[in-house]
Amino acid sequence: MTQTREVIRENIRRAVREVRETNPMAPSITNNVTINLVANVQLALGGSAAMVYVADEGEGLARQGGAMYLNMGTQMPVYAEAMPRTARVLHELGKNWVLDPVGIGLGGQRELILRELKAYKPSIVRGNASEILMLAELWELQTCPESTGARGTDTRDSVRSAAEAAAALARYTHGAVAISGEEDLVTDGALMAFSRGGSRWMTQVTGAGCSLGGAAAVYACVADPFTAALTATQAFNFAGRTAAARARGNGSFCVEFLDALCQATPEEIADNPFRLEAAGPAE
Amino acid sequence: MTQTREVIRENIRRAVREVRETNPMAPSITNNVTINLVANVQLALGGSAAMVYVADEGEGLARQGGAMYLNMGTQMPVYAEAMPRTARVLHELGKNWVLDPVGIGLGGQRELILRELKAYKPSIVRGNASEILMLAELWELQTCPESTGARGTDTRDSVRSAAEAAAALARYTHGAVAISGEEDLVTDGALMAFSRGGSRWMTQVTGAGCSLGGAAAVYACVADPFTAALTATQAFNFAGRTAAARARGNGSFCVEFLDALCQATPEEIADNPFRLEAAGPAE
Amino acid sequence: MTQTREVIRENIRRAVREVRETNPMAPSITNNVTINLVANVQLALGGSAAMVYVADEGEGLARQGGAMYLNMGTQMPVYAEAMPRTARVLHELGKNWVLDPVGIGLGGQRELILRELKAYKPSIVRGNASEILMLAELWELQTCPESTGARGTDTRDSVRSAAEAAAALARYTHGAVAISGEEDLVTDGALMAFSRGGSRWMTQVTGAGCSLGGAAAVYACVADPFTAALTATQAFNFAGRTAAARARGNGSFCVEFLDALCQATPEEIADNPFRLEAAGPAE
Repeated sequence: MTQTREVIRENIRRAVREVRETNPMAPSITNNVTINLVANVQLALGGSAAMVYVADEGEGLARQGGAMYLNMGTQMPVYAEAMPRTARVLHELGKNWVLDPVGIGLGGQRELILRELKAYKPSIVRGNASEILMLAELWELQTCPESTGARGTDTRDSVRSAAEAAAALARYTHGAVAISGEEDLVTDGALMAFSRGGSRWMTQVTGAGCSLGGAAAVYACVADPFTAALTATQAFNFAGRTAAARARGNGSFCVEFLDALCQATPEEIADNPFRLEAAGPAE
Repeated sequence: MTQTREVIRENIRRAVREVRETNPMAPSITNNVTINLVANVQLALGGSAAMVYVADEGEGLARQGGAMYLNMGTQMPVYAEAMPRTARVLHELGKNWVLDPVGIGLGGQRELILRELKAYKPSIVRGNASEILMLAELWELQTCPESTGARGTDTRDSVRSAAEAAAALARYTHGAVAISGEEDLVTDGALMAFSRGGSRWMTQVTGAGCSLGGAAAVYACVADPFTAALTATQAFNFAGRTAAARARGNGSFCVEFLDALCQATPEEIADNPFRLEAAGPAE
Repeated sequence: MTQTREVIRENIRRAVREVRETNPMAPSITNNVTINLVANVQLALGGSAAMVYVADEGEGLARQGGAMYLNMGTQMPVYAEAMPRTARVLHELGKNWVLDPVGIGLGGQRELILRELKAYKPSIVRGNASEILMLAELWELQTCPESTGARGTDTRDSVRSAAEAAAALARYTHGAVAISGEEDLVTDGALMAFSRGGSRWMTQVTGAGCSLGGAAAVYACVADPFTAALTATQAFNFAGRTAAARARGNGSFCVEFLDALCQATPEEIADNPFRLEAAGPAE
């Protein structure tokens, strides 16, 4: 897989460079806890951000943006219409979009929306292990008897235990799936990339996961789903490790993390350690 | 009261330690201005955060969480149903929950909700002096002719002037009340603890009060209301003083404050100066 | 114009001083992406912040506050009623208020509200060049065939190209208009002040524009619209330059920026370089 690694690395470097050169806009419908961090991460990488809640604005930004980010976070009634309508436009236009099913299992509207979104095949699904397992089950792509379910927005499952669910999701969407954990997984259903780095602080600052989704959307403006998801993951792992070396708590970690994203070179992001495995065979 | 002080200090140390060891989840329905800081403060202390707006998700998290935080901040229409329904579940389950009546007096829906919440007896009420006086009056526990009323979310009354109202509230809820001010007051209706420290910056950064409520909810997952409210207050006063020594403005203060919360030891939090008084007799 | 410059500088110094001495409250209805930064900027300058969404609370704060800030940002259904009703009270009371038409063109409700707000003549309109051109056209004060339209919340037009539209808006409202760009423009329809400074980081941190509107509202509690808008602009350009000298990315820039606002003296803000021009004749 040495050759594959080199191709992937070159794709990552190109995505990082192209975002910085072209300042693509990746709009979001995203949750209120971390909405500011999502925008600042997107800006740090060289992208442009725009956040909305209502359906016609979601549709309009789906048309204007290069790729889009839908994060299920803090459900408000307006999401029930805005999210499916926005996803439908994205799907019809063939644009990349990122789904973060955060909070799956928390409530009825959230589940209804997630069911509806299945038809619009997100190019990238990003979540923790429990969320990926639960989404694969909700979409009837895989039964996950082994999942213990999320606790609020926290995972109770390991990345490895969700790898098959991730591959199943990616094969269904013809896109990519990224799972955050101690070692992060990105898969397109055929190949699995395990990216290392980051920091324990990333679980002690709110929005590390949400803003990874926003970063993936920025890269998905200029790259294929697998490259976009992996570039975002690699950037976060590199910046997380860099920031951790300077942080004294989650306050300074967050500041240093944004700074590290601003300063990271295409080479540093591509050279963050990752390893490749073949995904299991499709069922 | 030397013996009482030592018991209180030990309870504080135990609460700090237990939160760090057990990572309890304290979900919130809280305002959009400071929602990110509330979550990051909860994570800094070792807890876990999850924020929602809609009723069935509030009820679900009431069941999942160890204790919960309801902050009246930026009222949206969805709060009218979500807050009472969530508080009712918390009350029925006998779980601790924290009410921050911020903005009491600003509008009609806010007042209606606060009236409804009376029946569900918040384990901890946290506010500034004007808010505590106004809540005691709204709940007909005390008339407060001397209150000059809040200005927006700012207090116009002194902590001392609200001490009786706080004690009356605590006796009604069989819980605790915390008032923020130059010297903070925490009372269970019998004992009054006055905690010192903090910094003038805490009034010049948005969310010091809101995030104190979130911190109290985290500690209320593992401790009784009085201990939880006092532990949060002591942690804030210690971290505020520590951060102020390093801050050059409200930007760096906020960063240093989170870092100081992350680093504070159980001993430092318990040893922050506080004094005890007996509360006045119940009317 | 030397004499005029000196008068303007003295007005700026007085506004900065008076805000620090009187802690005026400038409430907001503002977007969720940057709501925290708006509040912290207002506090950094010495003002007080209070954010609401619902109509009766907007009206109440319009009565309580010194001046108010309405930012069209993240439209939610509740804005349709809250914004016009709040603006109407402000107009009836003759209070200064600041309008940020951010996202103009994104959706139907946004446009309806902006049409309604015309009658309530905002004392200060703040936006980027594209937003100012589009608002002048929406309010039928000027046709702007040359505008290429905004991209999401980004400008595609130069400050200079929007100068006439700004002057037309200011003459209509009998207030002031501020355009953010490489060189910022503030005009009252007769005089144009071009303020320099800032930093490229101000376009790479979310909310530099929104929080400028909040700052203008704070100064509009104590000064006329032109002085208020220019004082806020000068403060931002001074603090932006100061912060840029210390920043390593958009994370540290944001922290340093708030700190610099906290520390800036009236003289530093008044002495930030600006030049004056007469506005073109009214049509």
